[in-house]
Amino acid sequence: MKKIAVFTSGGDAPGMNACIRAAVRTGIYKGLEVYGIYRGYEGMIEGDIKRLYSHSVSNIVQRGGTMLKSARSEEFRTPEGRKKAYENLKELGIEGLVAIGGDGTFTGAKLFFEEYGIPTVGCPGTIDNDIYGTDYTIGFDTAVNTALDAIDKIRDTAAAHDRIFFIEVMGRDAGFIAVESGIGGGAEFVMVPETKTDLKQVVKSLKNLRKSKTSSIIVVAEGDDLGNADEIMKQVKSQIKDPNKEFKVTTLGHIQRGGNPTARDRVLASRCGMAAVEGLLDGKTNCMAGVMNQQVVYTSFGDCIGKPKPLIQDHLKLIDILSI
Amino acid sequence: MKKIAVFTSGGDAPGMNACIRAAVRTGIYKGLEVYGIYRGYEGMIEGDIKRLYSHSVSNIVQRGGTMLKSARSEEFRTPEGRKKAYENLKELGIEGLVAIGGDGTFTGAKLFFEEYGIPTVGCPGTIDNDIYGTDYTIGFDTAVNTALDAIDKIRDTAAAHDRIFFIEVMGRDAGFIAVESGIGGGAEFVMVPETKTDLKQVVKSLKNLRKSKTSSIIVVAEGDDLGNADEIMKQVKSQIKDPNKEFKVTTLGHIQRGGNPTARDRVLASRCGMAAVEGLLDGKTNCMAGVMNQQVVYTSFGDCIGKPKPLIQDHLKLIDILSI
Amino acid sequence: MKKIAVFTSGGDAPGMNACIRAAVRTGIYKGLEVYGIYRGYEGMIEGDIKRLYSHSVSNIVQRGGTMLKSARSEEFRTPEGRKKAYENLKELGIEGLVAIGGDGTFTGAKLFFEEYGIPTVGCPGTIDNDIYGTDYTIGFDTAVNTALDAIDKIRDTAAAHDRIFFIEVMGRDAGFIAVESGIGGGAEFVMVPETKTDLKQVVKSLKNLRKSKTSSIIVVAEGDDLGNADEIMKQVKSQIKDPNKEFKVTTLGHIQRGGNPTARDRVLASRCGMAAVEGLLDGKTNCMAGVMNQQVVYTSFGDCIGKPKPLIQDHLKLIDILSI
Amino acid sequence: MKKIAVFTSGGDAPGMNACIRAAVRTGIYKGLEVYGIYRGYEGMIEGDIKRLYSHSVSNIVQRGGTMLKSARSEEFRTPEGRKKAYENLKELGIEGLVAIGGDGTFTGAKLFFEEYGIPTVGCPGTIDNDIYGTDYTIGFDTAVNTALDAIDKIRDTAAAHDRIFFIEVMGRDAGFIAVESGIGGGAEFVMVPETKTDLKQVVKSLKNLRKSKTSSIIVVAEGDDLGNADEIMKQVKSQIKDPNKEFKVTTLGHIQRGGNPTARDRVLASRCGMAAVEGLLDGKTNCMAGVMNQQVVYTSFGDCIGKPKPLIQDHLKLIDILSI
Repeated sequence: MKKIAVFTSGGDAPGMNACIRAAVRTGIYKGLEVYGIYRGYEGMIEGDIKRLYSHSVSNIVQRGGTMLKSARSEEFRTPEGRKKAYENLKELGIEGLVAIGGDGTFTGAKLFFEEYGIPTVGCPGTIDNDIYGTDYTIGFDTAVNTALDAIDKIRDTAAAHDRIFFIEVMGRDAGFIAVESGIGGGAEFVMVPETKTDLKQVVKSLKNLRKSKTSSIIVVAEGDDLGNADEIMKQVKSQIKDPNKEFKVTTLGHIQRGGNPTARDRVLASRCGMAAVEGLLDGKTNCMAGVMNQQVVYTSFGDCIGKPKPLIQDHLKLIDILSI
Repeated sequence: MKKIAVFTSGGDAPGMNACIRAAVRTGIYKGLEVYGIYRGYEGMIEGDIKRLYSHSVSNIVQRGGTMLKSARSEEFRTPEGRKKAYENLKELGIEGLVAIGGDGTFTGAKLFFEEYGIPTVGCPGTIDNDIYGTDYTIGFDTAVNTALDAIDKIRDTAAAHDRIFFIEVMGRDAGFIAVESGIGGGAEFVMVPETKTDLKQVVKSLKNLRKSKTSSIIVVAEGDDLGNADEIMKQVKSQIKDPNKEFKVTTLGHIQRGGNPTARDRVLASRCGMAAVEGLLDGKTNCMAGVMNQQVVYTSFGDCIGKPKPLIQDHLKLIDILSI
Repeated sequence: MKKIAVFTSGGDAPGMNACIRAAVRTGIYKGLEVYGIYRGYEGMIEGDIKRLYSHSVSNIVQRGGTMLKSARSEEFRTPEGRKKAYENLKELGIEGLVAIGGDGTFTGAKLFFEEYGIPTVGCPGTIDNDIYGTDYTIGFDTAVNTALDAIDKIRDTAAAHDRIFFIEVMGRDAGFIAVESGIGGGAEFVMVPETKTDLKQVVKSLKNLRKSKTSSIIVVAEGDDLGNADEIMKQVKSQIKDPNKEFKVTTLGHIQRGGNPTARDRVLASRCGMAAVEGLLDGKTNCMAGVMNQQVVYTSFGDCIGKPKPLIQDHLKLIDILSI
Repeated sequence: MKKIAVFTSGGDAPGMNACIRAAVRTGIYKGLEVYGIYRGYEGMIEGDIKRLYSHSVSNIVQRGGTMLKSARSEEFRTPEGRKKAYENLKELGIEGLVAIGGDGTFTGAKLFFEEYGIPTVGCPGTIDNDIYGTDYTIGFDTAVNTALDAIDKIRDTAAAHDRIFFIEVMGRDAGFIAVESGIGGGAEFVMVPETKTDLKQVVKSLKNLRKSKTSSIIVVAEGDDLGNADEIMKQVKSQIKDPNKEFKVTTLGHIQRGGNPTARDRVLASRCGMAAVEGLLDGKTNCMAGVMNQQVVYTSFGDCIGKPKPLIQDHLKLIDILSI
């Protein structure tokens, strides 16, 4: 293998730049030519591909976003699109790919390998942490800390006014951000897609909360079974029926995707980027480089996409105990 | 004057604690007994008032929110409510008040003085900066920096994806937060209540933005004449009609009220708190202690509430020039 | 077991408050009376012990430092000191202890159990991460992020001026903070106690660094075998002999111990605090509750203190590769 | 005037990039060609000058440091050096300069104008705030907040251990950073070059501090008349003679120069950059564009350099009162 290319795809996540940097420099360190593909599969189809050097990735380890940009590509879902992509890679002589992204990214890479045989090793780049095969995904730690910072700020104002706040964090299918920011932020309740939310119980508890607790914070993952934060607030409000209580909703939204990555995300991203290139050189393909139990592990794309990644049971227990 | 009391009222603002601390310690330094009234006028009516000592305000200068809590009081708008409040103060022998808050707080204090003659000096505690008689209000600088931090984060993800972001910041009647965070965050447009927003011009400009500018950020004060960020986004989207452009809205909400106060807010708050007590001892009443041109100035409540505080013209000019 | 007490000892670490809170509330949740011992073993000897309730630990999860304070105790090293401590605990009927701290804390607890039979379960509270039996210690993640934030800031000014910066971080015996902040901060070199620093190689590399790299950052753990950052800088400077190069040293010092704990530290601390109480109720003693591979594990104090905890080899490799 | 150039010189300060951006875009907006001179006067002499476009300054408003780099130039102090610099400018047809820096920068610009008649308008770029003609300098607000953040962190650990901390902040000739970070951080004492430090009084007060105040923070400007923080600590320690008290020193150093600029610094920098270009077009020279009392003012370089800028008296009073 002489030439490889790296790209980011799907929703961006803090730490992607650190991952790109590690992949590029590891490749160069190992004697490879390294290319960057811009805007994910879209750029692969359009041939938006440039040679990257060591200095190309200077001064990006600390930046959010992705210098290679990201995009969704409808065209890559078509055989014609993938054919164009393959021809562009072939023309440049690219023999291996590092794909930084999530489920959709890996699904695309798997299909592409089956059709055209270009080996790909993935890196788990998504804030949601919902990928099997790695304890944490790149961007998750930063997103949790951003959510936590917002919860801390809202607690200031909640405490000043005796209010009940519903804070919606990202997580359409997974409650990891909600759970960890909820524990860290001292939330009274956390509502996640993985567990059935018992509204009656919540209402009952809110009424019973000891008098000294004048404000309450409820963290809601956007994909909770009862709906989003706004919908849940309305249901709770209608059942509590206390005109003196104020109910407020804050939806954190895209700020969770940005920001300088935390130390943990930069280190994890660097490690995955290095391991992906080492994996390619080792003959690996169709798998993702993750970190579990402090060790690099390679997991097949099939498992990454298909296997469930459950919440940590202790964390759910903590929420119950700590809100007393 | 031997005994004074301090309270916070209206929406809380970062720096209120620093202001309370300065008022309390200045009072004690000057030989006064100082009391804290909890939950603003509501606590004044209910007699929720405690003696404060120097150590009562230790370790709060750096905290958001207000240790004295805040509340709206319907009852204080009634003659009966104010009578109760007066009786509580009289019973404790309180002869002067430091009122930290905004328009509503000062309106109440003015009326109360007219009826019961208890002198009050105010401190400008509100994130909106819309009070005449001070260059900046307590909490404004922190709120702007919080908004700016969010804009910086969103720019990361906007740049990664070629998107147009509408970010709604606080400011029902005043565009100060929008303007300063917009300049600081490098926004392409800023929409504020003080100026008529020309939607056609915005749409035209967005279409013409040079190609290298792949993402755009538009900061919207919640009180813009065209509506909130969500409504404006829909109007812009319907007129741009480009299926490849993604339009996203983020409403920052209550995180702007929280957080550790910035240096500027802590210093301003400390200065206003000290000046309020010095003002009371000087025989002042019915006025607010603010800082203009680096000097403490006292402005009558009537002027604080009634006089307009225009945006700085240079700032509006900057937005035009810097978005090219 | 009906009554337990919790204390912090040794150097303070961000997250200790979250750990205290979790221990207190888990105890109460399980039906125990919980006490707080102030200033570690010193307070145990002096009887500075108070009952803690659920509300006693409200609003502390986000604060650095330790509400129970910490101290070194010479007296506890004497049989007389430990006897007094025991009598104070006995008088209150305390039957179990949660000890949050590091090596010294656990050594004391071990001895105390051997002499007086009061079971103790520990929690790993130290920023250095040098305790066997847990992947990370409480406070480490915050300290790394604080160091990283400083490195990011110094990089701004290093890049503006073509300078070589030596940044000293904490770590007398362990290089964890140096390694993770060095990888995350994009340092050119990292010097740690665990590996022999080859000064000749450093000097040679600094001379050879490609021309485009105008500034360099070297992270030094305070316990490096070549000395502290100031001493190493002088050696490097005398060997490089380039009058145009500026050499600067920054010693981060105690800021690494403070600050609001990160999400990771709050979650880890909460989990250890809960597990410590559960361990006591389970009949455990003389061991520490840590988290390895996402699971709570209990490790004997003997192993915690005696077994080495090596740096992660991949991390050392990363530093070499990423500085090209 | 058709062509202007902008440069940064002296110590870098957060906000310099925002100032460069504003100068560049204002120039282009007004129809000028704008050039960037790299590494200050050094680059002027070496001809390290490049045309800048609107996109050249994209995405820098939020970054610390200076994209144009900075350097000290011995050669510019010689007639030969300045002659070379002039010839480089003349060759490119540059008719006006925007000089971002402090005293030294303006002294050079003044001399250069007197010799070669190239008009220069300056912008106050220095963290020390010691330039007459502007309420605040660019970078000061960020530096104060960085210092304050460090003080907050150290307070956490000071409070946990009953310690006396001496924190040294920048300010060789001016105490602005020390005073504002000291007020904001709740310091017990602040020592600055502008006032004589009475060590006896400090020692006496430290001994008398009420018992509930278990830790103390003393902020020292590096240029205090009694020496730096380390020297002062030793003097205090030798006079207090309390073996139970721990004395610790932290020198913040270069982290105060870095970091993303605050909102205030970005807005001030943008305004000064715009005003400098407008001033040049208005025929101004040999003066600095600053902001006083919310208005742009132009002050002659002679006054900027020569006139003293005293500390705000109220601030010194605040320190006395608030430390009770």
